[in-house]
Amino acid sequence: MKNINNSKLRIIPLGGLEQIGMNITAFEFEDSIIVVDCGLSFPEDDMLGIDLVIPDITYLKNNAEKVKGFVITHGHEDHIGALPYVMKELCVPIYATKLTMGIIENKFKEHDLLRTTKRKVVRHGQSINLGCFRIEFIKTNHSIADAAALAIYSPAGIVVHTGDFKVDYTPVFGDSIDLQRFAEIGKKGVLALMCDSTNAERPGFTMSERTVGKTFDNIFAEHRNTRIIIATFASNVDRVQQIINSAYKYGRKVVVEGRSMVNIISTAAELGYLNIPDYTLIDIEQMKNYPDEQMVLITTGSQGESMAALSRMAADMHRKVSIKPGDTVIFSSNPIPGNEKAVSKVINELSAKGADVIFQDAHVSGHACQEEIKLIYSLVHPKYAIPVHGEYRHLKAQAQLAMGLGIPKENVFILSSGDVLELDETQAKVAEKVQTGAILVDGLGVGDVGNIVLRDRQHLAEDGIVIVVLTLERYTNQLLAGPDLVSRGFVYVRESEDLMEDARQVVMDALDYCDTRHITDWGKIKNTIRDDLNNFIWKKTKRSPMILPIIMEVE
Amino acid sequence: MKNINNSKLRIIPLGGLEQIGMNITAFEFEDSIIVVDCGLSFPEDDMLGIDLVIPDITYLKNNAEKVKGFVITHGHEDHIGALPYVMKELCVPIYATKLTMGIIENKFKEHDLLRTTKRKVVRHGQSINLGCFRIEFIKTNHSIADAAALAIYSPAGIVVHTGDFKVDYTPVFGDSIDLQRFAEIGKKGVLALMCDSTNAERPGFTMSERTVGKTFDNIFAEHRNTRIIIATFASNVDRVQQIINSAYKYGRKVVVEGRSMVNIISTAAELGYLNIPDYTLIDIEQMKNYPDEQMVLITTGSQGESMAALSRMAADMHRKVSIKPGDTVIFSSNPIPGNEKAVSKVINELSAKGADVIFQDAHVSGHACQEEIKLIYSLVHPKYAIPVHGEYRHLKAQAQLAMGLGIPKENVFILSSGDVLELDETQAKVAEKVQTGAILVDGLGVGDVGNIVLRDRQHLAEDGIVIVVLTLERYTNQLLAGPDLVSRGFVYVRESEDLMEDARQVVMDALDYCDTRHITDWGKIKNTIRDDLNNFIWKKTKRSPMILPIIMEVE
Repeated sequence: MKNINNSKLRIIPLGGLEQIGMNITAFEFEDSIIVVDCGLSFPEDDMLGIDLVIPDITYLKNNAEKVKGFVITHGHEDHIGALPYVMKELCVPIYATKLTMGIIENKFKEHDLLRTTKRKVVRHGQSINLGCFRIEFIKTNHSIADAAALAIYSPAGIVVHTGDFKVDYTPVFGDSIDLQRFAEIGKKGVLALMCDSTNAERPGFTMSERTVGKTFDNIFAEHRNTRIIIATFASNVDRVQQIINSAYKYGRKVVVEGRSMVNIISTAAELGYLNIPDYTLIDIEQMKNYPDEQMVLITTGSQGESMAALSRMAADMHRKVSIKPGDTVIFSSNPIPGNEKAVSKVINELSAKGADVIFQDAHVSGHACQEEIKLIYSLVHPKYAIPVHGEYRHLKAQAQLAMGLGIPKENVFILSSGDVLELDETQAKVAEKVQTGAILVDGLGVGDVGNIVLRDRQHLAEDGIVIVVLTLERYTNQLLAGPDLVSRGFVYVRESEDLMEDARQVVMDALDYCDTRHITDWGKIKNTIRDDLNNFIWKKTKRSPMILPIIMEVE
Repeated sequence: MKNINNSKLRIIPLGGLEQIGMNITAFEFEDSIIVVDCGLSFPEDDMLGIDLVIPDITYLKNNAEKVKGFVITHGHEDHIGALPYVMKELCVPIYATKLTMGIIENKFKEHDLLRTTKRKVVRHGQSINLGCFRIEFIKTNHSIADAAALAIYSPAGIVVHTGDFKVDYTPVFGDSIDLQRFAEIGKKGVLALMCDSTNAERPGFTMSERTVGKTFDNIFAEHRNTRIIIATFASNVDRVQQIINSAYKYGRKVVVEGRSMVNIISTAAELGYLNIPDYTLIDIEQMKNYPDEQMVLITTGSQGESMAALSRMAADMHRKVSIKPGDTVIFSSNPIPGNEKAVSKVINELSAKGADVIFQDAHVSGHACQEEIKLIYSLVHPKYAIPVHGEYRHLKAQAQLAMGLGIPKENVFILSSGDVLELDETQAKVAEKVQTGAILVDGLGVGDVGNIVLRDRQHLAEDGIVIVVLTLERYTNQLLAGPDLVSRGFVYVRESEDLMEDARQVVMDALDYCDTRHITDWGKIKNTIRDDLNNFIWKKTKRSPMILPIIMEVE
């Protein structure tokens, strides 16, 4: 007879709550593991110099023979961004819908992974079998086309994972979310629902993407005599479609600017997710052949990212577009938390150049609000609720919604990264914890920058460094050269010559002190120099630069 | 006959638009200068290690004999914070209302300036004469008590400066804004209005501070069985008063926590701006003698500041208060732009500890919205409009309001820092530009950290530093010791031994190269080392640490 634990489903978030953005969840049953999504996150403010953060997949590597494949819900960075890194360590097949796979393949091209990874495009409504799991892709709506929810059929029961979603009854491209299928699966009996929590604090319904199209039409009608520049998320293909529609309606040509925007739009157009009327899209080089009132520029930079096209235009650093008085600039986006100040800076720069900046009503969220979340719970009717995708406050808000719908408190789980939730029809509990974490990517280095390096960068950033070098004679420890003091990021030395000269004297005194006490151990000499210099500099400046004594030895 | 220019009023913002937060404006007429406010700002994200930023007052120092005094509108940091630094360079009298002066004196105590500065408390309605100026203090409402607008009477005409204000018909303490006086002065004929722009983008009216009291009452009524913790701005004395009122009404004791909060509340209570019923305020040490449902904690940290009391409680680092499941935590504040993420972090930590976090409806702004701004314009009826206090977008929004009220476009001025606006009844124009700027304060150093130091800190923060030391024999340039490579903030060396060993070889090769080509100039040797090592490290890691070659010389 089998061990009872072996016949439970194990759900293991390998990122998520403690690593927002790294959406990656393992589903394990006996000898099968499937992984849903594989996202990356961007560095926190204290991760100085770091480019990207990817999940620690030690657990998957330790169980590599079990891992049957990665199933991807949609093509946003926080769901696919870590795939190129993970695929260098685990070579398993990837399953996704067409546009999602197109975006993944763009990445794989850059990382030279196209030949080595097995990929399969799945249609909505289709199922795939991976080990003892069957996974069905269900049509949803989101701020990127081709998003899917997943029904994960395991021997222990069905888990429904919504991915990121909203309910859009009038989507711009393709069908509305397949609510009937959610209901059908609900009827079969669902063990657990893992539902998007991003907007769980917001009452009501998220507006249809189509409402933004009406706003564009209104703005275009009101600004017939000026150039229009619209900043939005590169991946929001439906948004771009609506801008193109309004442009066509009002007789304007469209230029697309910003690398990520150009990439995704060409992929989307190639795969048939964008419908561009002939002669509407023009190259940025042709812009000069058209008057301002016949132009729309669609650009990246809606989050105030300093290197994005709009920010460079606002700062007069864009090679091809300068902001002119009278330009109408539309932010078709909301600032993501943390970007508010950067966005405001760009708005100020644009305003100061005389542009008319519009930042209201030209955006809707891609995530479900409270009424939509309740709708999904009511259709799916799960035994267990596992809120996903959000900060703690958002997961908790969904947990409260779930309890309000009658799910008992003990059946609602807010999981931390690495928690192993074991569940079946009779019971669910967090049984153990596996290794998870954030791997920092800096340039080509994956994981070679850790806490010590970050702490040093923080220290260097705050107060700079003072380096003390001296050369001693071997055996006698007699001072042959130095001490020389070199500083960077501390004070402007030419204006602080006295301070540095006094500091040098402090080092000389420290050396004398060591000499008279016959201290010859270099470690002790360095510590004495460091302590004395540290005290001196703190007293004089109330600063604590990193102090780095280096001793060289000559025979 | 006098030169016509000499009989114009000159208005010179010495901070403001380019240095948000540094509110300091000089008014000059012939041989008299008065200065309104003297604020500081906090460092931008790229000002690594900087504590404060204060205005460059070169213009005032160059005209020191003309400067008659500083007139202060209210006691917020962005209006008084730079006074201690400025008073060390310019010794002139300061004029302010009672509470404002009390807060200034707290600062002067810390900086040991009480004996050396002349200070005079002014009542609302009172005027002072400074050189050829007369300045009248007019009662206004704001998020700190005792705020004043100023009517500045000059031989060229009257300028009304609102300070930071709102219109509160039902203030918590003292009188409503003296709209009648604004109207009377308006009747006399006002040359220019300098009006607060903070909320100029927001339609409607700002709610009365008193409405927050009702919200507190409701929350207290709904949470009778839990401890209540309220975070708000230290300086919002009226807010604290309302919390105390609700606490008293619902039979709770009040503890005040956080250094700045304790400071301002004791000053306000001493000066009669707070009415605290006996036995209501208790010391934090006595908290243990009362059950949770009889306690209210008022604390700093409403902006998520990492060292503030609430953040320390949320992170389990507060010595006296731990967050418990069931605690009700109220954010009586809105995040200031840039602080959203930090606030969200604290909310997540509090939620994860089981606290019930309330962050809606428990705050109102202290600044006038569009209808209030229009009201002031209509009462004052100025010839010229000079929007102040805000980012460019806010100043522009007020400029548009002013034009909507019939002020001709050419009479509306958005001034940059250092602009000298010369004006009289017949004409106004920006006549010249004087030196202004941001002086960085780091520890005890005022102005000794400049662009080079900041650029070095940025570089160090991004990729760390690699130091190359070597000792050469004098004259022969023979290598006596090294090259030794020491890095900080670059890679974790124990895991990158090969890289560092290869890097050392690159330096050896560079030295050989110099040797064979008879390059003996140290500058050239250092450049060769730097370039070669930089190329090598970039190729291997795609990073650019600062590379610092240090050569020592031994005979």
